[in-house]
Amino acid sequence: MLRLRRLGIDTHRENVAFLRRDCASYQAEEFRVLNRIEVFPADGGGRRIRATLNIVDPGPIMEADALGLSDSAFAQLGLPEGAQVAIEAAAPPVSHEVLRGKILGRTLSADELRAIVSDMVAGRYSKMEIAAFIAASANAFTHEEVLGLTRAMIDTGTTLRWSGGPGRMVVDKHSIGGIPGNRTTMIVVPIVAAHGLMMPKTSSRAITSPAGTADTMEVLARVELSVEEMQAVVEREGACLAWGGHVNLSPADDLFITVERPLAIDSREQMVASILSKKAAAGATHLLLDIPVGPSAKVRSGEDATRLRKLFEYVADAIGLRIDIVMSDGRQPIGRGIGPVLEARDVMAVLRNEREAPADLRDKALLLAGHVLEFDPALRGGEGFARARDILFSGRALAKFEAIVDRQGRNRDVLKPGELTHEVTARETGSVQAIDCFRLARIARLAGAPLAKGAGIDLLKKCGEKIRAGETLYRIHASLQTDLGFARAHAEAGSGYRIAP
Amino acid sequence: MLRLRRLGIDTHRENVAFLRRDCASYQAEEFRVLNRIEVFPADGGGRRIRATLNIVDPGPIMEADALGLSDSAFAQLGLPEGAQVAIEAAAPPVSHEVLRGKILGRTLSADELRAIVSDMVAGRYSKMEIAAFIAASANAFTHEEVLGLTRAMIDTGTTLRWSGGPGRMVVDKHSIGGIPGNRTTMIVVPIVAAHGLMMPKTSSRAITSPAGTADTMEVLARVELSVEEMQAVVEREGACLAWGGHVNLSPADDLFITVERPLAIDSREQMVASILSKKAAAGATHLLLDIPVGPSAKVRSGEDATRLRKLFEYVADAIGLRIDIVMSDGRQPIGRGIGPVLEARDVMAVLRNEREAPADLRDKALLLAGHVLEFDPALRGGEGFARARDILFSGRALAKFEAIVDRQGRNRDVLKPGELTHEVTARETGSVQAIDCFRLARIARLAGAPLAKGAGIDLLKKCGEKIRAGETLYRIHASLQTDLGFARAHAEAGSGYRIAP
Repeated sequence: MLRLRRLGIDTHRENVAFLRRDCASYQAEEFRVLNRIEVFPADGGGRRIRATLNIVDPGPIMEADALGLSDSAFAQLGLPEGAQVAIEAAAPPVSHEVLRGKILGRTLSADELRAIVSDMVAGRYSKMEIAAFIAASANAFTHEEVLGLTRAMIDTGTTLRWSGGPGRMVVDKHSIGGIPGNRTTMIVVPIVAAHGLMMPKTSSRAITSPAGTADTMEVLARVELSVEEMQAVVEREGACLAWGGHVNLSPADDLFITVERPLAIDSREQMVASILSKKAAAGATHLLLDIPVGPSAKVRSGEDATRLRKLFEYVADAIGLRIDIVMSDGRQPIGRGIGPVLEARDVMAVLRNEREAPADLRDKALLLAGHVLEFDPALRGGEGFARARDILFSGRALAKFEAIVDRQGRNRDVLKPGELTHEVTARETGSVQAIDCFRLARIARLAGAPLAKGAGIDLLKKCGEKIRAGETLYRIHASLQTDLGFARAHAEAGSGYRIAP
Repeated sequence: MLRLRRLGIDTHRENVAFLRRDCASYQAEEFRVLNRIEVFPADGGGRRIRATLNIVDPGPIMEADALGLSDSAFAQLGLPEGAQVAIEAAAPPVSHEVLRGKILGRTLSADELRAIVSDMVAGRYSKMEIAAFIAASANAFTHEEVLGLTRAMIDTGTTLRWSGGPGRMVVDKHSIGGIPGNRTTMIVVPIVAAHGLMMPKTSSRAITSPAGTADTMEVLARVELSVEEMQAVVEREGACLAWGGHVNLSPADDLFITVERPLAIDSREQMVASILSKKAAAGATHLLLDIPVGPSAKVRSGEDATRLRKLFEYVADAIGLRIDIVMSDGRQPIGRGIGPVLEARDVMAVLRNEREAPADLRDKALLLAGHVLEFDPALRGGEGFARARDILFSGRALAKFEAIVDRQGRNRDVLKPGELTHEVTARETGSVQAIDCFRLARIARLAGAPLAKGAGIDLLKKCGEKIRAGETLYRIHASLQTDLGFARAHAEAGSGYRIAP
């Protein structure tokens, strides 16, 4: 018998248990070899969890008769501190044999994939095991396996339902990431909602980029809405622009991300399963997918984009999600701003039809909104783009956006671009040939984005524009001198611009 | 600046750093996203290590201005407690791009494999990253890649040199695991040494089996020898039977094992690289490899064994290791005893030429020893087996073994089989068709082997023998009543014997 202790150690979603080396009830060294244990109430009833075992020397961390748990493990077990618990060596999760099969090159059935995903979501996989699954499936999944994985990911999470009953159309859009400043969602959603289609949009925060749509929207309004709050906003406005992180839409995807991010793996197969499972779970019936193609985008050639499109189409068709796919120009950032405040400024300029609004952001948003509107059976084929333009130019998109902001909770603080700035200038005279999306994202992140909302980059030159040596290419904004220093050093090592005479 | 603290947490070879949530010098939450940090002396000089970051709530575990390290991380950094250290977000290890390439299906060059292995041995890979490498390479390595991996594993560890100068023959043998009781090494080594070949044998302890050769040898003699002690024994006796764990022969392999064991992955490619890198690093010039083939062995068919043999031959030839490969009968355990004491009893019975010595253990040891002796250019071709038999039957093998035991340090305690016993009996009458190696290993382990030296199984019937219902198949030995209970329950759920009329 051991007494349960919450140690207050956040292990980043990995369940870890701590046992004293001098524990009287168990031979810590024997368990150490096994590494994975199960923890359960001493009376045998209730939930069992799995954890990786760490051995603790005698000392102040915990008592000899205690079993310490990391935060996630403690929450999962759901018992109070001081509860009597017991441990035993964990037999491998049931799906382990399937995982081994995949590693050794087998093709998995839908049921086998479901077994793996269920074990993961139930907390039975260590990160090491998740990493092995990701590595073994990257580039080694059939179309059917991607479908099986997508279905398993949908089935193991929450599914949202929207008012209007079955048959009611719910539209969504998604852009494959990697293009800084690509904030079309905040323009597309009000256009589509003003037209009358339902678009309850959940977006992510930045993980490795300088801003996600949720980060940028948060400059203007509250985005951390509960499901009930989202439903109330959508009920009134036909749309919302909320953060999806509260909703547990595809918990398996959240686990995959904890591994994919440090490993920087982003396989085609995982991408399709991740996006489509989240959209289906969010209740979408129709999805417009934007695949930016460019030398520094995630998808680098038309051929790659076509292969990716076919995989999206195959899986979407099979799960009953209508999908339309647009390949867009991913050769440079969209708009001028990179970072939450600077991007929000661009979005508002487009919605307000300001003369200096970035034309590329406006045009891309109209293109995408036009495609979404084409889902509407009531609209004459081919009229989507014109309708989108009418809604934007008439100010109805702006009115809808302001209504959504008010309904979600307007941010009364006016956030401004970071006051510390540094201008990066051209070394040669000529015209801009290419802008490295990856490098600019990195510089904006070093400047403090997205945590410092005002940090980022303001682009003064885009592809095709002429420039003289000494003229400014872009301005770095930061809130802290150290951040500005990091970003500046990185920009000086390479501006990310290619200029040719 | 942070003050270094050794927290006394053994994280099983994963480097973990602990930072307080309320730390004044760093924003813990920002680092948390990144997950991997580098730790280095605040004055900038000295060693840098990489670690996974855990966030600790305010409380007794450590002070707010401290950086806690797990045992392995603390040892690697090599600074005293209280030293001033700093941290920063860890850039991915240089070889990360190569790892991603492998995951996405590329074939790696020798230099790329060396980059990965070097980063791993330098502690720059988390277990998650090692798992991704293992999973991506299992079943997806060319012969050239296995060779590149083997070379990288040799080059990143210690290499032993034996007296006699270059050109002096150093022989070794290895049996692919999975066959309980397969303790031929303790008979082969004294035969070969008595003949006059040099055989400095390092063996492993059991990881998932009921006994490794080092565990069984330890029943009779000290096996934890330093390199110098090994050299002294070999100098006098021409051979030793030591544990290889002190020697750091292939540190990459030790890291692979920490991942392969919990994942229960044992790919052909890893096996070849692991075995050959350790043998080459141990200074062997000639290797006899025993591949047991059977339905519950690691290698299950003659065809599999042939593919494995060719891979061993390809890599061994390329690294200049002379190899001879024997396929042996792996359909049942070898000898009667399973577990350190019971296996040591069998070995001694063979060496002493006792009438009741297990014939299969003796015959297999003679076969292998004969093959090893054939490496000797001075011996007439085909005479190895006869010579081995002469040496065993004349008592010279026993004399050599006793000399090695004395030289290493004889264990004066006579260890006995566990006094608690349970007999597992046959349910039907007939003859033994098959014995499941895997199941018997599991039962012996549940009985307490290898930690309880006397625990294990004593087989009273082997394949081909007749048996009547109610007769004893085997006897379980244990030292603790609870262990006996576990083993007995598992044996009752399935004895591991197949009996047919």
